[in-house]
Amino acid sequence: MKTLPQVLAFDVFGTVVNWHGSIAREVNALGLGVDGAQFATAWRAGYRPAMDRVRHGDLGWTRIDHLHRMILDEVLVQFGLNNMDEAARQHLNKAWHRLSPWADSVRGLTRLKSRFTICTLSNGNLGLLSNMAKNAGLPWDLILSAEVFHHYKPDPQTYLGVADVFELEPAQVMLVAAHKDDLEAAQACGLATAFIERPDEFGARRRDDLGRDHAFDFHATDFLDLADQLGCQA
Amino acid sequence: MKTLPQVLAFDVFGTVVNWHGSIAREVNALGLGVDGAQFATAWRAGYRPAMDRVRHGDLGWTRIDHLHRMILDEVLVQFGLNNMDEAARQHLNKAWHRLSPWADSVRGLTRLKSRFTICTLSNGNLGLLSNMAKNAGLPWDLILSAEVFHHYKPDPQTYLGVADVFELEPAQVMLVAAHKDDLEAAQACGLATAFIERPDEFGARRRDDLGRDHAFDFHATDFLDLADQLGCQA
Repeated sequence: MKTLPQVLAFDVFGTVVNWHGSIAREVNALGLGVDGAQFATAWRAGYRPAMDRVRHGDLGWTRIDHLHRMILDEVLVQFGLNNMDEAARQHLNKAWHRLSPWADSVRGLTRLKSRFTICTLSNGNLGLLSNMAKNAGLPWDLILSAEVFHHYKPDPQTYLGVADVFELEPAQVMLVAAHKDDLEAAQACGLATAFIERPDEFGARRRDDLGRDHAFDFHATDFLDLADQLGCQA
Repeated sequence: MKTLPQVLAFDVFGTVVNWHGSIAREVNALGLGVDGAQFATAWRAGYRPAMDRVRHGDLGWTRIDHLHRMILDEVLVQFGLNNMDEAARQHLNKAWHRLSPWADSVRGLTRLKSRFTICTLSNGNLGLLSNMAKNAGLPWDLILSAEVFHHYKPDPQTYLGVADVFELEPAQVMLVAAHKDDLEAAQACGLATAFIERPDEFGARRRDDLGRDHAFDFHATDFLDLADQLGCQA
């Protein structure tokens, strides 16, 4: 990469916030007699297939909040919890608005913000992402979402959409993500890329895909490491 | 109004930031031999007609940055400055990204944010609004723009769009604005309304339309007064 980008666009679920630990904790706190970690894994397993239904046109544009709810209703059946009432389902579904950041996230983003414009590029909807930012203190300069582009990642309209919003060349935007498929799709659109290790994303099942991939411009253990590498003062 | 809204959506140009004073100051600082205040007034005069071309379908969706530039090119001719080069035009056009907030804006928004979700609802584009927020320290929970809805205010899709993003009823959203026509259009969509006096919006030409209108839910001298009326602690 010749010059540093101007905008850092962050994947959110897994990269900025700990979805597995947060969902597991909320489910366990409900005392339903199910394993919160297994419940979190099952809920998230429905995420990509549900988005793919939208991406492939089987389903019209549908916010993640609604996809989460469709999956939740199925997962509750699987876990023998189909007697949960409507108000409890609505509250549990909003657990995705209350996800906790990784320990380094707020401090790292604050450092990165001192030198770059920092925005989200998440499949989460705008309402979800703004509630999450307010709750967790995430200091975004701008919240961008698949909802703005009416395309879910990894559709190219999302990555190119960020560059277009700021009227920059794709190479002036860097995607920061803990997922190599997301980074590869961004790279195919010409964006710069930074991989962040998030070994605990899936809880006890440690990730085994954290090796350094020299195709990406940066590889960092967390946001503080990325801030160091990008010359953002502590 | 029976219950307080959950989301406060703010008009930006004139309500949060002092466009006239900021543009006049930048133009005067260029030492072009023209009156900055008159230049600011002329530039802004083209704003509503340009948006109306988009609203009425004479022009496809066009960001404010580009409308500002089209108007700027005409105003430069009017003021005998048509020799300004391309780089200088681009820089001057971005003066709208650098507008200064009113003296109470940051402190007032911070107080209001402690109790409400605060977002923009501006005809400014996302890139402009995020640059402005970063530059001026405006603590938005979410930046919403006509660009998200592909409709300019006062089209109802903008006011109803805010409620839809948060999945709220229109009455759970309150538009905060210094312009009665904006508030009236929001009210027609069912939103709550708060009028803010901004007597200096047009510079030396003091506004004469600041009287209390009992059709609106709140009337405040500035954001600190609004925060007092809404019970947000100092």
